Amino acid sequence: MQYQFLESDELFTRVKTLTNLAKQAAAAAQKQGKKTTEKLIGEIEKPINVPHLPAGFKVDVPQFDVTKRLNKLPRSWDLPQELYKKHLPKYNVGTIYRIQELLNSGEGYIGQTVTVAGWVRTVRDQKNLCFIELNDGTSFGGLQIVVEDKIGNFEQVAKTNTGFSLKVTGNIVKSPAKGQLIEMLHEVVIIGQADPEEYPMAKGVQKPETLRQKAHLRPRGNFFSAVTRIRNNLAYATHVFFQNNGCLYIHTPIITGSDCEGAGEMFRISTIFDNDISKIPQIKGKVDTAQDFFKKEVNLTVSGQLQVEHFCISMSNVYTFGPTFRAEKAHTHRHLAEFWMIEPEFAFADLFDNMEAAEGYVKFCINYILQNNIDDLQFLDKRVKPGLIDYLKDIVSKDFVRCSYTQGIDILLKAQQAGAKFENSDIKWGMDLNSEHERFIAEKVFQRPVFLYDYPKEIKAFYMKVGTDDGKCVRAMDMLIPQVGELIGGSQREERYDVLAQRIKECGLKLEDYGPYMDLRKYGTVPHCGFGLGFERLVMMVTGVENIRDVIPFPRYHGSAEF
Amino acid sequence: MQYQFLESDELFTRVKTLTNLAKQAAAAAQKQGKKTTEKLIGEIEKPINVPHLPAGFKVDVPQFDVTKRLNKLPRSWDLPQELYKKHLPKYNVGTIYRIQELLNSGEGYIGQTVTVAGWVRTVRDQKNLCFIELNDGTSFGGLQIVVEDKIGNFEQVAKTNTGFSLKVTGNIVKSPAKGQLIEMLHEVVIIGQADPEEYPMAKGVQKPETLRQKAHLRPRGNFFSAVTRIRNNLAYATHVFFQNNGCLYIHTPIITGSDCEGAGEMFRISTIFDNDISKIPQIKGKVDTAQDFFKKEVNLTVSGQLQVEHFCISMSNVYTFGPTFRAEKAHTHRHLAEFWMIEPEFAFADLFDNMEAAEGYVKFCINYILQNNIDDLQFLDKRVKPGLIDYLKDIVSKDFVRCSYTQGIDILLKAQQAGAKFENSDIKWGMDLNSEHERFIAEKVFQRPVFLYDYPKEIKAFYMKVGTDDGKCVRAMDMLIPQVGELIGGSQREERYDVLAQRIKECGLKLEDYGPYMDLRKYGTVPHCGFGLGFERLVMMVTGVENIRDVIPFPRYHGSAEF
Repeated sequence: MQYQFLESDELFTRVKTLTNLAKQAAAAAQKQGKKTTEKLIGEIEKPINVPHLPAGFKVDVPQFDVTKRLNKLPRSWDLPQELYKKHLPKYNVGTIYRIQELLNSGEGYIGQTVTVAGWVRTVRDQKNLCFIELNDGTSFGGLQIVVEDKIGNFEQVAKTNTGFSLKVTGNIVKSPAKGQLIEMLHEVVIIGQADPEEYPMAKGVQKPETLRQKAHLRPRGNFFSAVTRIRNNLAYATHVFFQNNGCLYIHTPIITGSDCEGAGEMFRISTIFDNDISKIPQIKGKVDTAQDFFKKEVNLTVSGQLQVEHFCISMSNVYTFGPTFRAEKAHTHRHLAEFWMIEPEFAFADLFDNMEAAEGYVKFCINYILQNNIDDLQFLDKRVKPGLIDYLKDIVSKDFVRCSYTQGIDILLKAQQAGAKFENSDIKWGMDLNSEHERFIAEKVFQRPVFLYDYPKEIKAFYMKVGTDDGKCVRAMDMLIPQVGELIGGSQREERYDVLAQRIKECGLKLEDYGPYMDLRKYGTVPHCGFGLGFERLVMMVTGVENIRDVIPFPRYHGSAEF
Repeated sequence: MQYQFLESDELFTRVKTLTNLAKQAAAAAQKQGKKTTEKLIGEIEKPINVPHLPAGFKVDVPQFDVTKRLNKLPRSWDLPQELYKKHLPKYNVGTIYRIQELLNSGEGYIGQTVTVAGWVRTVRDQKNLCFIELNDGTSFGGLQIVVEDKIGNFEQVAKTNTGFSLKVTGNIVKSPAKGQLIEMLHEVVIIGQADPEEYPMAKGVQKPETLRQKAHLRPRGNFFSAVTRIRNNLAYATHVFFQNNGCLYIHTPIITGSDCEGAGEMFRISTIFDNDISKIPQIKGKVDTAQDFFKKEVNLTVSGQLQVEHFCISMSNVYTFGPTFRAEKAHTHRHLAEFWMIEPEFAFADLFDNMEAAEGYVKFCINYILQNNIDDLQFLDKRVKPGLIDYLKDIVSKDFVRCSYTQGIDILLKAQQAGAKFENSDIKWGMDLNSEHERFIAEKVFQRPVFLYDYPKEIKAFYMKVGTDDGKCVRAMDMLIPQVGELIGGSQREERYDVLAQRIKECGLKLEDYGPYMDLRKYGTVPHCGFGLGFERLVMMVTGVENIRDVIPFPRYHGSAEF
C-alpha cells in the first residue's frame, strides 16, 4: 500500500533519479542478466519510509476561518445528497433487464417475469437442480438462477461452465437466504460457449499481472470489473461536480504546436516519418518540417492548462478532462505514457477558493463512490487494501488542513529535533519536499489531508502568482493525502502582465512563445486559479489498487501499446 | 445551410474525389495563381443539390411496430423530464455570484446585495448615470449595471470600455423594462483594462473567420460563447443519457499499435523522429522501430470501437467519448484532423435496439439544449440559421422512419421515373448512396430523420453481421437527418466466430491481426451492436453552424495547429 506521486514539479528531481535507475535497469537486463535487473527494479520500487511521529510530538492545526471568506455563498461541496446518488439506470437499451436493476430494486420485481442475459460465473449441479450465478457486469454480485430439470435443455444447461453466455427468462422469487434473488425458469438460451480448457478466466482467481496480458478478458473477473465500475462513476462524478458548480467542459487540443509547458518529454506526431529513411522529406540532412501535415513540428499535449485558461478569461469557470501524454521511460507502478487529466480553472478566484474547490471535488468523488459502489468497495477492502472503506470515510469526515510551506518546514525541523528520522535529512527552507516529508505531514502530524501552500518560487512554474509577501513565494498549493502523497497540484495564476513577463524571463523562457497567453493579461485580465489531477491517481486512491496499469482499460507505457 | 457528411464508409469515394480536388487546388495555388485555386475550391465546396420531390410523388412510410419488440421495458428515450433539466448551478467556486444564476432566479435575488464579476460588453454614459452590460460567460445575456455618480470612482468607471474586467457589489432591483434586472451600486472595482485601439473585440461584430485567428479571445463574443455553452451541454447530456441507460464510460486508448480499423490515414507517434536525420536510429536505411518508445510503430487512434467492444463483452453496455484523428488533407467545412467521437456498444441487443438507442440519444440531446440553452438558440436562430429552433423542435416531435436500403433504392428509382433529377443518376441496388440521395429520402420523401438499414455487404465494414436473408446484406444502419445528411452510422456486429473469420478473409485482411477481437467470439460470444457519432457534427446540427472549425475550441487541420 505504498504510493508515491512523483510527477509533480517539486518531485521532478526524484523522477529523474528513478528514470536513470530505470535506464540502468534496462541496460543491465541486456548485459548482466536477470539478477542485477531485479535488484535495480527493487531499488526503483522501494517504498519511501514515512518516519514515525516522535513520542509526545504535537503541533497546533493552523487555524483558517473558512466562514469569514465565504460571504453567504454555499461551500462548493455543500451539494445536496441527491446529487451524490446516481439516477438509477432504470432505462434500457434493448429488451434485457440489467441485473443491477433487479438486485437494487429490493422486492420490486418479485413475481414478475423478466429476461436477463450475461456470463456464467459458477455452476453447481445437483442432479435434478442446478444453480448458476449469472453476471452481466452491471453490478458486483450476480443473479442466482435455479434451473430445474423440467426445462427441455436441462442437460446442456447443467454442463455450462464459467464464461458461457446465457439468456434466461423466468420469474423473480424471494430467496430464502439473506434477500438474494432466485429465478424460477421458463427458458435458458445458451448463446455462446467457452471451452474450460482454453478459457483463461475458468482457471480460478488470477493475478492482476497475468490478466494484464489478457486485457480483452480481464473485465470478466471480479477485480477488474469492480475497478471499471468505480472508474466509470468517478468520471461521471467529475462531470456532475463541475457542471453543478457552473463550470463548462472545454475540449483542449491533443495535438499541440507549442512545447511551452515544459512539463516533460513529449511524443512527436508526424505523417512524413517513413520507415524508409530516404522517403523522409529533407534538406541537407535535416527533416523538412514544412512538408509535415501541420507544416511544423507538433507533439502530443502534456497539459491542457494554458489552453483552458483562454476560456476561463471569458467563460469564468471551466474545466478540461482528457488524455495527456509523457514520453518518460520510467518503469514504476505509478507512471503511464498515456493518462487522463482533470484541470479546472476558476476566474475571479484566489488560492483559497482553489483549495475549497479541490477539497469539495475530492470529497464529492469519494462520497459518490461510497453511495454507489459499496459492493465493489467491500470486495476491494477484503482482497486489495484492508481498511479501504474506513480510510475513505475518514478522509471525507475531516476538514482538510491549510498549512503554509514555511509552517511545514518548521514542523519537519521540529520533528527532526524531537527524533524523527528522514531518509533525506537535509531539511531547510527552499528545498523541494520529498514524498516522505509530504506523507509525514499528512499521515503522521495531522492525520488527514493537508493543503501545503505558498511555495518558494524557485521550485515552481513561471505562471504562478508572485505572493504579496516579499516576493519569495508563489501562490501554489499541493493537496497531500495520507498513504498516498500528492494527489492535486494547483496555483493562483499570475494575472499581472508586467510581473508575468518578468517571471518568463527569469525562468529562461521566451516571451514571444507566449503571445496569446500574454494577451489574456492585456485585455481585461482577472485573478484566476486552477488545479490539475491525474485521474488514474484518483482511481488508485479510491480503489486501493497499487499499480496504475490496473486502473486503466488499455495501459500504455515504455515498450507496450498492446490491444 | 448546406451540409454534407462525407466521412462515412459509403461516402468514401466522394471523400477521395474531394481530397484529390483539394490537392489539385493546393498545387494550383502554387503554380497557377489565385483564380484557378478559387475555382477548384468552389468545386470542393459545391453544395450537393437535393432534387425537388416530383409533383404528386408519394410513398408509404414503412411500418415498424416498436411496441411489439419492446416487451414491457420503457423506451430508451422515455427519460423523465427532470433529467432533461440540468441541475441549476447554484453552487459557487469562490465568492462571486454567477450572472446566469441571478438572471434565472426570477425575482429570487431582488433586494439582496451581491457581488458579480465579468467583462464589459457595452457602456452607455449619460452624464451623471452610466449603464454597463456585464457578461461573465455563464449566460447569453449580461447583467445591466446602473452606475450613479455618487460612487467614488464614477469618472473612471464611465470611461471603461468593451473588454474591461470589473467586480461589482450592489443591490439587485427589479427592472422597469421586461423583467431585466438592474443593480444599484455600492462599489465597482476595475480589475483589468482593455485598450479599445488594440482590443480586437472592441471593433463591433466580426466574422467567424477573423475570430478564428484570435482563438484565445473569440469566446468573448456572442457567437462563439453561445456555441461553447451549447457544446458543453451536449457533452454533459451525452454522459447523462448513457449513464442513465446503464452504460459505463470506457476510456479507450489514443495511442494504438494496431492499424486494423482501416478507417483512414493515420498520424504516427514517435520519440526517435529527430530533425537531424543522422540521429534517427536506423538499420540499412530503414528506421529501427524497435528503438522507438513503444518498440514498434504506433499511431493516433481513428476509432475506439474495437477496443470498447472488449468491454461490452463483459460489462454489457458501454460507451467511449474521446478524441480521434484523421490525417486527411481535405480543406472543407466539414473535416478536422482532430475531433471527438461518441461510440456506444450494447450487448444482447440487435440492430433495431441500436436504432432505438440512437433515436433516443439524439432526441435527448436536442431536448436538453432546447430546455437549457434557449437564449443561445434564439441568437443563433436570428444570426446564423433562420428557423433553427423550429427545425430542432420538428426533429424531436417525429418518430424516425425505419427504411431498408432496398426500399430506399426502390423509392429513388420511382422518384427518378416520376421526374426527380439526381446529379448521380445511375441508381441501382449495390451502389453507395451519395449525400444528395440520402438527403432526398430524409428531407423530401419522409421529411424527418430516417434510419436506412441492411446495406449490401460489399460497401460496408468486415465486422458487421451478415444478414439472415440470402447473405447479401449486413446489418448496418445510417441515421439520415434533413438538411444534414448522415449523422450516425452503426451496425450489429458479427458475433459468430466462423462467419467473422470468413468475412475478414473476404475483405483481404489478416486473421492474425485480430487475435483478441476473435477471442471475444470464442469465449461466451453474444449478439451486440453499436454506433458512432462525430461530436462536432452534432454540435453543428444543433447550433446551425456551417463550418466545423467554429464549433471546437482549437481546430486542428491540414497546415494548422495553432494555440
